[in-house]
Amino acid sequence: MQNERFFEKHLTFWDKLTPSQKSLVLANLSTVSYEKGESIHQGGNDCNGIILVKSGRLRTYIMSEEGKEVTLFRLGEGDVCILSASCIINIITFDVYITAEQDSKVYLLGKRAFELLCKENIYAENFSYKTIVSHFSDVMWSIEQILFMDFKKRLAVFLIDQSALDGTAYVKMTHEEIANHIGSAREVVSRMLKKFENEGIVRLSRADIKITDKSKLRKLAS
Amino acid sequence: MQNERFFEKHLTFWDKLTPSQKSLVLANLSTVSYEKGESIHQGGNDCNGIILVKSGRLRTYIMSEEGKEVTLFRLGEGDVCILSASCIINIITFDVYITAEQDSKVYLLGKRAFELLCKENIYAENFSYKTIVSHFSDVMWSIEQILFMDFKKRLAVFLIDQSALDGTAYVKMTHEEIANHIGSAREVVSRMLKKFENEGIVRLSRADIKITDKSKLRKLAS
Repeated sequence: MQNERFFEKHLTFWDKLTPSQKSLVLANLSTVSYEKGESIHQGGNDCNGIILVKSGRLRTYIMSEEGKEVTLFRLGEGDVCILSASCIINIITFDVYITAEQDSKVYLLGKRAFELLCKENIYAENFSYKTIVSHFSDVMWSIEQILFMDFKKRLAVFLIDQSALDGTAYVKMTHEEIANHIGSAREVVSRMLKKFENEGIVRLSRADIKITDKSKLRKLAS
Repeated sequence: MQNERFFEKHLTFWDKLTPSQKSLVLANLSTVSYEKGESIHQGGNDCNGIILVKSGRLRTYIMSEEGKEVTLFRLGEGDVCILSASCIINIITFDVYITAEQDSKVYLLGKRAFELLCKENIYAENFSYKTIVSHFSDVMWSIEQILFMDFKKRLAVFLIDQSALDGTAYVKMTHEEIANHIGSAREVVSRMLKKFENEGIVRLSRADIKITDKSKLRKLAS
């Protein structure tokens, strides 16, 4: 019952389903917990079904053959990801990876049930495409930053966003992780962070990066 | 009548429209001709409506504040572009530019008619999202090339694709134009083309680039 209310809110096609279609969803739904850092979906090898985030935060990214990562978007409570079931949407020809960025709980709707639902119900199909299109916008935002934004600015924007997301002045990430997020290399990130430190904007330690002058950082980001 | 057959083929929701919805489309449709190089859609300033390509070829790209361009995908006969009406799809938050790459003829469906259609008819709305999702795949292909592929290989792939598209051994583009296509800078493209020329792969002239050793170029691209 509690589930149903959550679905009604986040799966906007829920009230367009027939009773038997609702039963199909409920029967093919599992709740899965992931620990921080755990892999949820690994590109073309996986086809789990669609993900609805109950709590926590997931990171969606692409990866090169050499293992270089670029973050596409994040998923938080109530967000749905269809790309994890891309095997059954044949117009999606690219692979994404998904990892838990925090301890997370998700609903997983099996791919067969999802496939059947989309075939039977145009509103379910439409919801899927619409969800993917909204992620397309997120992706374009990330990509434009990577392709067009000056690196210094990009790093400043990332630090501000990340500390806002976590609600603290600390960014608890390695330089390697930050590089993956913003499509750069560890050495480049380390060099620029060192520069920020010299300007009194951040304080670096082994465990984290503390933002010490937020207004200066904001100026860099704007 | 001839129009209708073209729509039936390329607008897959056509047979789901009511007679009055079909009339709405036909009454708000115009045929527009563009010369090679002419601008069709200019980012956030424009909201023309949706485009259905009758003949020719269009290029869709993003542009930085400094005017740097990156090609997202091309549109040929029968292809539909919804992004040119992104003002009425509020989950599309990025801007694209569209230019005629050849002399082209397009059908343009006005934004108000298109908006009404999508509101009234779930199949029309679904077609729109589906079309955008398939372009998302094209975009990811381009982006992965730019972010992950070695530059030499990227240029080789571009020359092969472009000459195949035009059906000739000549690529009639400036180094600047090529740089815009593959997300690089003119200097970098010129330097690498010079290298290709020294290796006997291409012959450069003011007007074009001739591919003189296709098999060597293919090897670089694979």
